[in-house]
Amino acid sequence: MTRHYTLTISCPDRVGIIAAVTGFIAEHSGFIVEASYHTEEEQFFMRQEIRADSLPFDADEFCRRFSWLASEFSMDWKLADSAQNKRLVILVSRQDHCLDDLLHRWRTKELQVDIPCVISNHEDLRSFVEWHGIPFIHVDMQDKAAAFEKIAGHFDEHRGDTMVLARFMQILPSSLCQRYLGRIINIHHSFLPSFVGAKPYHQAYLRGVKLIGATCHYVTDELDAGPIIEQDTMRIDHGDTVDDLVRYGRDIEKTVLARGLRYHVEDRVLVCGNKTIVFK
Amino acid sequence: MTRHYTLTISCPDRVGIIAAVTGFIAEHSGFIVEASYHTEEEQFFMRQEIRADSLPFDADEFCRRFSWLASEFSMDWKLADSAQNKRLVILVSRQDHCLDDLLHRWRTKELQVDIPCVISNHEDLRSFVEWHGIPFIHVDMQDKAAAFEKIAGHFDEHRGDTMVLARFMQILPSSLCQRYLGRIINIHHSFLPSFVGAKPYHQAYLRGVKLIGATCHYVTDELDAGPIIEQDTMRIDHGDTVDDLVRYGRDIEKTVLARGLRYHVEDRVLVCGNKTIVFK
Amino acid sequence: MTRHYTLTISCPDRVGIIAAVTGFIAEHSGFIVEASYHTEEEQFFMRQEIRADSLPFDADEFCRRFSWLASEFSMDWKLADSAQNKRLVILVSRQDHCLDDLLHRWRTKELQVDIPCVISNHEDLRSFVEWHGIPFIHVDMQDKAAAFEKIAGHFDEHRGDTMVLARFMQILPSSLCQRYLGRIINIHHSFLPSFVGAKPYHQAYLRGVKLIGATCHYVTDELDAGPIIEQDTMRIDHGDTVDDLVRYGRDIEKTVLARGLRYHVEDRVLVCGNKTIVFK
Amino acid sequence: MTRHYTLTISCPDRVGIIAAVTGFIAEHSGFIVEASYHTEEEQFFMRQEIRADSLPFDADEFCRRFSWLASEFSMDWKLADSAQNKRLVILVSRQDHCLDDLLHRWRTKELQVDIPCVISNHEDLRSFVEWHGIPFIHVDMQDKAAAFEKIAGHFDEHRGDTMVLARFMQILPSSLCQRYLGRIINIHHSFLPSFVGAKPYHQAYLRGVKLIGATCHYVTDELDAGPIIEQDTMRIDHGDTVDDLVRYGRDIEKTVLARGLRYHVEDRVLVCGNKTIVFK
Repeated sequence: MTRHYTLTISCPDRVGIIAAVTGFIAEHSGFIVEASYHTEEEQFFMRQEIRADSLPFDADEFCRRFSWLASEFSMDWKLADSAQNKRLVILVSRQDHCLDDLLHRWRTKELQVDIPCVISNHEDLRSFVEWHGIPFIHVDMQDKAAAFEKIAGHFDEHRGDTMVLARFMQILPSSLCQRYLGRIINIHHSFLPSFVGAKPYHQAYLRGVKLIGATCHYVTDELDAGPIIEQDTMRIDHGDTVDDLVRYGRDIEKTVLARGLRYHVEDRVLVCGNKTIVFK
Repeated sequence: MTRHYTLTISCPDRVGIIAAVTGFIAEHSGFIVEASYHTEEEQFFMRQEIRADSLPFDADEFCRRFSWLASEFSMDWKLADSAQNKRLVILVSRQDHCLDDLLHRWRTKELQVDIPCVISNHEDLRSFVEWHGIPFIHVDMQDKAAAFEKIAGHFDEHRGDTMVLARFMQILPSSLCQRYLGRIINIHHSFLPSFVGAKPYHQAYLRGVKLIGATCHYVTDELDAGPIIEQDTMRIDHGDTVDDLVRYGRDIEKTVLARGLRYHVEDRVLVCGNKTIVFK
Repeated sequence: MTRHYTLTISCPDRVGIIAAVTGFIAEHSGFIVEASYHTEEEQFFMRQEIRADSLPFDADEFCRRFSWLASEFSMDWKLADSAQNKRLVILVSRQDHCLDDLLHRWRTKELQVDIPCVISNHEDLRSFVEWHGIPFIHVDMQDKAAAFEKIAGHFDEHRGDTMVLARFMQILPSSLCQRYLGRIINIHHSFLPSFVGAKPYHQAYLRGVKLIGATCHYVTDELDAGPIIEQDTMRIDHGDTVDDLVRYGRDIEKTVLARGLRYHVEDRVLVCGNKTIVFK
Repeated sequence: MTRHYTLTISCPDRVGIIAAVTGFIAEHSGFIVEASYHTEEEQFFMRQEIRADSLPFDADEFCRRFSWLASEFSMDWKLADSAQNKRLVILVSRQDHCLDDLLHRWRTKELQVDIPCVISNHEDLRSFVEWHGIPFIHVDMQDKAAAFEKIAGHFDEHRGDTMVLARFMQILPSSLCQRYLGRIINIHHSFLPSFVGAKPYHQAYLRGVKLIGATCHYVTDELDAGPIIEQDTMRIDHGDTVDDLVRYGRDIEKTVLARGLRYHVEDRVLVCGNKTIVFK
């Protein structure tokens, strides 16, 4: 993959936005690799990938020159550089299927990110994480308030971009949710909005649904109610016990988290109210 | 398909049930075409298809002889004869995608049932139904109580086995739900338990889910909360409007209803509390 | 849906195409409703929906003015007007599940097309088609060459845009395939390239596959080898007979054909060699 | 999971088999946990799970007593003991997504097997395998005949039950295929029978299919033509490059292999000609 810049824009919809933006890029011989647009409730959303080596200047200069256009259209915008890896701090508890999956994608370079550390409230996964050469930080959850302060501290210290709750099984305090809004990603083990909260597979079993699912979403103040990035379901039947659902569920959870995280890392996700636009 | 009897049984679980039942069948040279078993919460469920011509007697005699065994095991049981079509009374409103789908399966003999009449609160679909040679009955919903009395009357008069709410869009009174418990099948246009009640596609759109679904279930007192027979989902994305969801949804609704109804008609569905066992 | 023009373009890739096209549209205050781009093998593909009432002139004038730009970029292009329904001529044999499905979508206006006639080599479906007020034309296939000449004649006489083989079960002569290249759509009852030709469900059964599928594709000279527009699969298991596969298959066939046809009708499909780009 | 015996049977179909077998089990107070039946081409297939502690004798004694009945019905049969782990020897090349997935399921006890060793023609995965405490054996493939002899030697020496080709990328010699018939499982990265042989994702890309898939099958003499155990597909679109297909494909491959392997390990797969019966 050659180096590219990803320009994401959100602004009030009107005639001429695409023309203005692509005109600006073309003026500087910028080569557009991928382009996506969406309009929702009179708001316009846009994502462009531009080949870095097609431009006569660097990202900083691009931003300087683009800011004039951006302000004319009242744009909320961002330019990401593919050469600059996002930094994911992963939080886990004892179950490691999502962690295993993410670390595999990381070490095979499928997921091009940095993982400065993994934080857990248990010691179980230390050896596995450290085998990867990634620092493992244990945080005691006895005093929850203090624990979450520590977690935030580690996240900041390691210059984390995104906090990934890879089956962390702890409810984050409101203050943390707000502080890192749009930067905390959770995998919930149900097809939301069904089965919010604890033991969703038990809830699903008791309700007798014929498919189970998983949901990757941004964390907000309200439990399991943040903007949904990705979901999937799979078929079960009456012969499946709760343990079977838990087992099948692991496969959906890790796939859905990996997909959602990839969209996030590639700046494909734009938030619009409590919904997401995912430019695949 | 050669004629067969379908024996469905539910009884307290213990050692020897399968042996006793299959022993009884073998004793009379009964040829088992299909056999399924399930145990849940110490209750045993069983379904057998036996070729009619392999037995030396008819269904009545089978029942007479079997009843002794059945009472020994405290069985709740039933024998259905494939030569005896189930009688479906279909209730519709204005939207006809499920009706069209069911009538097509009926007239091509894919769904082997009788449809003694179609009942609607609108006149729109009269011509289409009558083209099939099926009586179309219009019931005015001004006075709801009276209307539902009339519907029940028509159902009984036409010796209906099962009432199919093929997007009927009216909430049935509690009395009717109880009177025909386990005999009324509804298609709800969401993946229950998400989005109960009215306008589920609007609800789904507002929540920003990434898949939509439909649910075929038995109707009980509680709205959209009866035992689920069949469900399915399909992927949508941010570009889809509510109208798109409604349009995609029609395809899931008719498929899910057709599948669920087929299971019901073939005596594949056994109810266990608020859940179903579906022997496919 | 407000009236809109759909502009589809294919041209050699270079810097500035999007800027030039969207610049042209913006210059005339054209409001872009939907925009999609794709580059493959140094060829650029583009589709834009523009609100008709946002432009100061009609489609003809748009084309006149746009042609200068188009020739500068060596574009292969087309402007479609949503007010101008495509004209589908449907060919069927005896099986009517796809026909039933398409006519339902047509009469409920889900599929906004004209159907000037339905052509068949059997009389079976006359009454159903005529109930819709659509002319039904029977063509005898004894003399195949003559029959296909007649079919082409009817198609031309009814000013058909697209010929839909809705389980027509006859192999078209090469001359016809070439004459209407890119305008004949077939539904094949397997997940191509597996199980080309006759009796694909039997082939699938014998091979013991665990999913079956259907494929909607443009018809070319080579049997079942034209550009694929849409496909889907569904799970089966060892308990399913060939008849079961045929039955399940009908549901996939009609859904896949309906989807593929919709993409085609909405000018979402661009052909690139033997592949399609489908701008959903 | 309490200890159980799995009895799998295949024999000519006739009246009374289920009665005889379940009668035998009931006579000894055997408690049947799960029971499945299937008839195909006048052959009867059966699988029963019996709770070990419900029987008054052990597996050996069960076999001794059952053999009389078995010979009466000309049964091909087997009794597996859940306390006796199957021994999987995994063969890999350089790509480790399937290996990583299997080892994760093994170390979390989701897949209850023994893995006496992992064999590879490359050294790349040694450290990862050895971290699990599993011996890693490198076999040089310069001299293919000798290499496969060595592989067979290691397999036998480690008392392997099943050889798992987890993206091994080498074609096994006919002699090996025959020697371990029904005991070698491969994951092929296409939806067979499409795209047999090398580079299936490139083949899929060139054909322009709209879904890709993977197939888990028993290895036989004929390349990629053995009995299929499990398959799955996923949707792609024109925007996906071959690299994208390869990346998506990894997720299907590992899921399909894990599912197929689980069926095999739990004695749920019975081979019938070139097809499988999978009692899920």
